[in-house]
Amino acid sequence: MKTVAVRHIERAAPETVAGLAKLGVATVHEAQGRSGLLRPCLRPIYPGARIAGSAVAVMAQPGDNWMIHVAIELCQKGDILVVGCTSECSDGFFGELLAQSAKARGVPALVIDGGVRDTRELTELGFPVWSKAVNAKGTVKATLGAVNIPIVCAGQHVVPGDVVVADDDGVVIVPRLTAATVLAAGEKREANEAAKRARLAAGELGLDLYNMRPALEKAGLVYLDTLADYERLQKQATP
Amino acid sequence: MKTVAVRHIERAAPETVAGLAKLGVATVHEAQGRSGLLRPCLRPIYPGARIAGSAVAVMAQPGDNWMIHVAIELCQKGDILVVGCTSECSDGFFGELLAQSAKARGVPALVIDGGVRDTRELTELGFPVWSKAVNAKGTVKATLGAVNIPIVCAGQHVVPGDVVVADDDGVVIVPRLTAATVLAAGEKREANEAAKRARLAAGELGLDLYNMRPALEKAGLVYLDTLADYERLQKQATP
Amino acid sequence: MKTVAVRHIERAAPETVAGLAKLGVATVHEAQGRSGLLRPCLRPIYPGARIAGSAVAVMAQPGDNWMIHVAIELCQKGDILVVGCTSECSDGFFGELLAQSAKARGVPALVIDGGVRDTRELTELGFPVWSKAVNAKGTVKATLGAVNIPIVCAGQHVVPGDVVVADDDGVVIVPRLTAATVLAAGEKREANEAAKRARLAAGELGLDLYNMRPALEKAGLVYLDTLADYERLQKQATP
Amino acid sequence: MKTVAVRHIERAAPETVAGLAKLGVATVHEAQGRSGLLRPCLRPIYPGARIAGSAVAVMAQPGDNWMIHVAIELCQKGDILVVGCTSECSDGFFGELLAQSAKARGVPALVIDGGVRDTRELTELGFPVWSKAVNAKGTVKATLGAVNIPIVCAGQHVVPGDVVVADDDGVVIVPRLTAATVLAAGEKREANEAAKRARLAAGELGLDLYNMRPALEKAGLVYLDTLADYERLQKQATP
Amino acid sequence: MKTVAVRHIERAAPETVAGLAKLGVATVHEAQGRSGLLRPCLRPIYPGARIAGSAVAVMAQPGDNWMIHVAIELCQKGDILVVGCTSECSDGFFGELLAQSAKARGVPALVIDGGVRDTRELTELGFPVWSKAVNAKGTVKATLGAVNIPIVCAGQHVVPGDVVVADDDGVVIVPRLTAATVLAAGEKREANEAAKRARLAAGELGLDLYNMRPALEKAGLVYLDTLADYERLQKQATP
Amino acid sequence: MKTVAVRHIERAAPETVAGLAKLGVATVHEAQGRSGLLRPCLRPIYPGARIAGSAVAVMAQPGDNWMIHVAIELCQKGDILVVGCTSECSDGFFGELLAQSAKARGVPALVIDGGVRDTRELTELGFPVWSKAVNAKGTVKATLGAVNIPIVCAGQHVVPGDVVVADDDGVVIVPRLTAATVLAAGEKREANEAAKRARLAAGELGLDLYNMRPALEKAGLVYLDTLADYERLQKQATP
Repeated sequence: MKTVAVRHIERAAPETVAGLAKLGVATVHEAQGRSGLLRPCLRPIYPGARIAGSAVAVMAQPGDNWMIHVAIELCQKGDILVVGCTSECSDGFFGELLAQSAKARGVPALVIDGGVRDTRELTELGFPVWSKAVNAKGTVKATLGAVNIPIVCAGQHVVPGDVVVADDDGVVIVPRLTAATVLAAGEKREANEAAKRARLAAGELGLDLYNMRPALEKAGLVYLDTLADYERLQKQATP
Repeated sequence: MKTVAVRHIERAAPETVAGLAKLGVATVHEAQGRSGLLRPCLRPIYPGARIAGSAVAVMAQPGDNWMIHVAIELCQKGDILVVGCTSECSDGFFGELLAQSAKARGVPALVIDGGVRDTRELTELGFPVWSKAVNAKGTVKATLGAVNIPIVCAGQHVVPGDVVVADDDGVVIVPRLTAATVLAAGEKREANEAAKRARLAAGELGLDLYNMRPALEKAGLVYLDTLADYERLQKQATP
Repeated sequence: MKTVAVRHIERAAPETVAGLAKLGVATVHEAQGRSGLLRPCLRPIYPGARIAGSAVAVMAQPGDNWMIHVAIELCQKGDILVVGCTSECSDGFFGELLAQSAKARGVPALVIDGGVRDTRELTELGFPVWSKAVNAKGTVKATLGAVNIPIVCAGQHVVPGDVVVADDDGVVIVPRLTAATVLAAGEKREANEAAKRARLAAGELGLDLYNMRPALEKAGLVYLDTLADYERLQKQATP
Repeated sequence: MKTVAVRHIERAAPETVAGLAKLGVATVHEAQGRSGLLRPCLRPIYPGARIAGSAVAVMAQPGDNWMIHVAIELCQKGDILVVGCTSECSDGFFGELLAQSAKARGVPALVIDGGVRDTRELTELGFPVWSKAVNAKGTVKATLGAVNIPIVCAGQHVVPGDVVVADDDGVVIVPRLTAATVLAAGEKREANEAAKRARLAAGELGLDLYNMRPALEKAGLVYLDTLADYERLQKQATP
Repeated sequence: MKTVAVRHIERAAPETVAGLAKLGVATVHEAQGRSGLLRPCLRPIYPGARIAGSAVAVMAQPGDNWMIHVAIELCQKGDILVVGCTSECSDGFFGELLAQSAKARGVPALVIDGGVRDTRELTELGFPVWSKAVNAKGTVKATLGAVNIPIVCAGQHVVPGDVVVADDDGVVIVPRLTAATVLAAGEKREANEAAKRARLAAGELGLDLYNMRPALEKAGLVYLDTLADYERLQKQATP
Repeated sequence: MKTVAVRHIERAAPETVAGLAKLGVATVHEAQGRSGLLRPCLRPIYPGARIAGSAVAVMAQPGDNWMIHVAIELCQKGDILVVGCTSECSDGFFGELLAQSAKARGVPALVIDGGVRDTRELTELGFPVWSKAVNAKGTVKATLGAVNIPIVCAGQHVVPGDVVVADDDGVVIVPRLTAATVLAAGEKREANEAAKRARLAAGELGLDLYNMRPALEKAGLVYLDTLADYERLQKQATP
């Protein structure tokens, strides 16, 4: 890893970012072909937040948050800090003072493959964090990492300027170059779901709505009447 | 595993199911001799729900929720979907559309040894889920599993029609055939606890209430006055 | 391990304990040189509690809560039960009846390297618990452990009478003998942080507030203009 | 759970058991329709053992191996001890003395959803154990469990007398009633695999051997020439 | 994710690959600035293998190894299969038949963020695998993934054609474009280490060899004579 | 934590240390009343080593092995390095060069609540390590920890000079002051076990050897004849 900080990154259009925030993580993830989802161990510190922003990517060393300070200077209003670590570490890299600083710069949220502290204060401040741990152990500022280079965070490749979408379902990364296409696909998907929702809520079965019965039959699903039939079957043969 | 779906299952009496719901998981678990508890990694997506119902059991393949669609058709009002997986998988097998469908059929809840998505929408819908992960990753519909055969879910054997009880403490399975007996034992236990609760809340010690002192003495518990006594003892001997 | 119970322990001054509670876990942990923090897998059963008290230390056997009953008798008003286990165990060692008993004796909270049950009732009772699991499985009372000897709980050495501080960020142990010094250091730290908070909230960068720029330069951080510069650099050399 | 010990169990025919041992875990698991596999966290204490036997099923309490002593008396020559636990526990339930006793009764192996100790001695003795931990912590003999009732061990339902097959790939349970059928299916499968093995080892592709190309095309797999083509595609559209 | 397979990838020079294999994982990882290391949960199925090759990258679906068949056709002699999965899955994606096929095509090894089966046979075949689990559960061939696109495997970004180095210490990825530079840096490092090794083996201290004493003193390390001095210090002050 | 290094520690008598090594971990753990065992996630890098020595205790920072260099100077021949970390970290704190240095100073082994690298070289060198991970990621030397203060390592309190015993079953700590007593108890225990071993190997049951039958009966164990009896019982009542 080069110990560098890149000053200028390209960002998606603000209306694209805003549109993706409205769609939410599950829809965006589907809309881009089920890719870009961070590992589900990253959870929000409080429920209900749903945001999107351009990623300012940070690669930190275990037990060291020096690079987050470097990153905050490079953030523009609306950017989201996305922090990976060179090895597994659950220390509390980020707390209330850093949140004050981030907020003052217009940064609305943090995504970190590590721990966070001062969760009560962050909640009161309305600064949501997606992390894999809550951990009061703070960190030192002794070893360089990097800012705004491509990183892996919680199992996903993140290029600075990619769009980060986060809500109660987790965090998904949308590459900057395809963000507009994904937004369009997501909005179409959502419109499509509204009709399905109404039919399912009215009691129509997914089996019929999605026309699954022929495929199930072809795949070999056998309907039995009772558990006793199954027990008889069990004693006879095996696939 | 046979790829079958069993249409008709036997269920416990509705008043038995309702009674078990009222008792809650911890009491029911004790009342049936401390058995039937699912692994504690299954947690509710929101606090406060307490339910019971007859299990419609589903065995799914990793990354595939086809069988949940098959199962919903076989549910009666009040049944609870209980989903195991043929191998460890935390994908989001279930989301808001499926919940709409389940709810329309009268299914009040889901228990899944896997992940769930759309938790905000499920919370707004009042559809509680006990799962081992929140995960936006949806699943395909490509490989058969089974519905309404005996399964293992989160470490417990579940026979279709068994009673599922779930609340903030987790999920417990009560075999259908003993459900009435367990209910009676649980209600007796609860009545018994009320008296104990009052005495403990009034300051009586468990040591006296349960008459533990003779047993502790017989087992060899030694009371020392101060930590200094303990340090002296440490330097002398070992058991 | 000796199977003993020590009756009398020394405690920190009540005003010291109260002062530490006000500071909270993250500040206290920093103020004593980043030591004493329990493993972050211990989480509160509900958010918002912030307490401190003198530790009554319990070493329990797996699946057995006999020693908690012994410990409650030895608690004074304000003491906090701190329970370790002789091996990894997530059973629900503690539930509502024990909480009633503890509360009646003036014990305000429990910290346990194990599981807890009846979380809904404990929440209603206002009895916070920091545990590593919620688990309805109760325990037996068959094998002796010890009370009020030095133990290890969730990775930290706890001497009976040490001060326990717990909040949404976790749990930290302050040795009794240094509690007053730590309190003083923590209060000084907090005063110091107020000034920093104001400057950061006003938009001043941590880079400037903490004068990090010279150190970053000396450590070799290189600023690049764009990601293209980084890609060029990548193709040239390696450290 | 009833605290009982069942004296007499039915067993599969010895030649069926021996045949299943020869097939090994992976083949048996496939031959019975991919069911019955214990969680992969159960690993052998030394490589190279491959065995089968009739399950003598034990349900133990955490930290307590009393029931294993009860079980050994009920074993016949060739039976395998299969031990589950009423809650997660990695204590060393079994060590060299118990292995001496088991071996003297003709028991060739142990499968345990818990820990084992004295692994060096067990290896010298040639007594293989599949466990989820090596742990020197021994257990007490204070609380009853059960022997030879249906249990869940490492995620699988085990009925006493079911056939246990174990090797370097893990452990699989074959229901007694279908053991002969599974053996036949497994032997057929193995014969079939020999021909495939030869063709694959000679360089024929699985794509051709299994005739996958039409299905891949139908599913929509697109072949591109170079990574540059992929990058172009990325910038255009999303599914 | 696009469901594509890229036929042609660029590879590093064979002598570069061979040189990196000789250096081993720990040295290569240092030589490229401590980057590229896969998560340490990936372990070899047998000790002693040390290899390098060009990555043929596969993105598989959970429980589905279809894409591995597609990938084998695209491998050249010496390529290493590197398999990621769209979500966490420990199924046994790869077994002896696939190994026969891979070996016949000149593929010497597999790296997989998932499980592997038939480990005894793979060991006899001399086909090393780095995986996160041994798991007899096989997979289906039902859902498309991708071959030879950039993937994340066990926390690292892998571009097809990158060099994979694997040994008892784990797996490291070297970007193709910097492979020659990393090799040179690694060889220099190794030469340098030989001298250090000799001096350390002769009893010289790292404190002196690396001239650490001034830095330790400057950082504030205090030498005390005895533990009693430390205990006195403990009672006085805190940092 | 004070950033100190204590030069002189007291050690147990060499013959006591040697005697404890001969007994091994499981026996020593029992002989001192089942205490002092490190968490079982610490495993040896190769099988067969059995050692004991006086603990030189190190508290390291995550990702930083500076203190190990400081510690090696303070070791005497036969001392064992025991390394804890201020937070969870699996980096490879220790590799071949450090092992050369340690070996040159007469240190025979390392116990670390972290990771280790160069395991092939360490094995060839005959330098056993008990660690919780193998990890090629090296560490920096930037932040102070402490040497020869009391630490917690893998869940156990370790005072410098305590005796460390390690073998295939794990690692146990024996306090220096009770080491001789524990040795005596362990040797007595071993003598006692020899007789039991002979009787068990001759086919005598543990039930009889330990006279368990009356206690089992008193505890309420019920013998049933067949599984059918159990099924009848299941349908009747619950405890």
